Amino acid sequence: MSNKKNAAQNNPASIKTYKKDSSVSYALGAAPTFELLKKYPEKATRVFVHSSWERGAASDELFKICRFIGIEPEERDKAFSVLSQKENCFVIGEFEKYELALDPSKAHIVLVNPSNSGNLGTILRTALGFGIYDIAIIRPGVDVFDPKTVRASMGALFSLRVKYFDSFEEYCGSKDCGATGRAFYPFMLKAKLELGSSPLKQRCSLVFGNEATGLPDSFLNVGESVIIRHSNEIDSLNLPMAVGIALYEWKRSGKL
Amino acid sequence: MSNKKNAAQNNPASIKTYKKDSSVSYALGAAPTFELLKKYPEKATRVFVHSSWERGAASDELFKICRFIGIEPEERDKAFSVLSQKENCFVIGEFEKYELALDPSKAHIVLVNPSNSGNLGTILRTALGFGIYDIAIIRPGVDVFDPKTVRASMGALFSLRVKYFDSFEEYCGSKDCGATGRAFYPFMLKAKLELGSSPLKQRCSLVFGNEATGLPDSFLNVGESVIIRHSNEIDSLNLPMAVGIALYEWKRSGKL
Repeated sequence: MSNKKNAAQNNPASIKTYKKDSSVSYALGAAPTFELLKKYPEKATRVFVHSSWERGAASDELFKICRFIGIEPEERDKAFSVLSQKENCFVIGEFEKYELALDPSKAHIVLVNPSNSGNLGTILRTALGFGIYDIAIIRPGVDVFDPKTVRASMGALFSLRVKYFDSFEEYCGSKDCGATGRAFYPFMLKAKLELGSSPLKQRCSLVFGNEATGLPDSFLNVGESVIIRHSNEIDSLNLPMAVGIALYEWKRSGKL
Repeated sequence: MSNKKNAAQNNPASIKTYKKDSSVSYALGAAPTFELLKKYPEKATRVFVHSSWERGAASDELFKICRFIGIEPEERDKAFSVLSQKENCFVIGEFEKYELALDPSKAHIVLVNPSNSGNLGTILRTALGFGIYDIAIIRPGVDVFDPKTVRASMGALFSLRVKYFDSFEEYCGSKDCGATGRAFYPFMLKAKLELGSSPLKQRCSLVFGNEATGLPDSFLNVGESVIIRHSNEIDSLNLPMAVGIALYEWKRSGKL
């Protein structure tokens, strides 16, 4: 891998603001970049470090990994002004985008039309924390490779399988899903089954709607719809919170 | 209340960016402003509406409440450019800041040195959702009246009692806490008791540390420390997530 080359590397000037249709994206920050280089070294194309990054154990480790996979880190402060809005970002990992099939034997999170990059990142991080590795996103949905999402996930993205589908029906009919024998739990305010009142099946799809609108009523006919009971003093829990609580309960169910 | 007057109202020019030591703060957006006017009409000082706000049922309702409490809404777009960074903000409620005692007979959330306004707002909204009304914040801690917090709380702030203490010891010794017979649950990665392994007492303090550093080890000697078990593939859950999951379990415990 020591002679890794790509068009971007051959043109040192080409650092552009990320767009949804870009073929590469960026891990902003040291922690997500480490995750990228450890989990998908073959997808990493360039690594930028800021001149003001304090050299020490972390930079030694980064340079070591880069050498191992054949990338020469570039000290280019311009990359940071173009790509990062945050002040405390000193390392950027560039990578080629990819898509992975889901594991049909495992539990999935299904996000129907998620619209917020930061929320999606938080969900990815929490999913990894509770041992769910497979995420289906039903279009239209926010771009999982948006640097804001990668950053909010703290690099968890690189440990997960994420796949987009044009509709929930497409997901259900896919090899990725493996619908036979799988339990479906759409989370809805109109649902009757209260989360925690009976154990969740372990091979299941936990399905969540858009931040503002939730799931459409048609999901009341899908599997067994579930509500996370809360007081009527708030309209709803926020989306990552609902997902996190569902995951906690799913994991707890596995021990019952 | 129809002759409500205050210095700010008498000087129409005085709209200033919010600062921590300001005596007034702002509810940005229609939903938080409605909560302010319903829960603390006596604290509301001015209401601004944007000229581009579409008039209809919501504006009728707002004007009605304003009339009832003796405030004349002001159409001043300048207020929005000064106070709000968000584009979708058409109503702003100004209010005098206040402090409330906590209810010592109730469960509390104790946040030790929280540093993020948005996180604090999300925690407030989730607390209200699970029926916890009392929040202690140990200084240094982010300002609960920061408009970013008020907005992230969706106005939940106005249904809660929030009080600052200079130290955890001060909180424990206060009338607000009522330490006798109260259970203390510090949430820590080094804790031994796993959340969900035994029911949480209902009159308790759920204690959480700073976003980056968590609680100091000294909290291992406070009450019964608790860990939300997650995989070692992530460093930690984010703070609002940890609080939300703890609250879910606390509420579940109450039904056991």
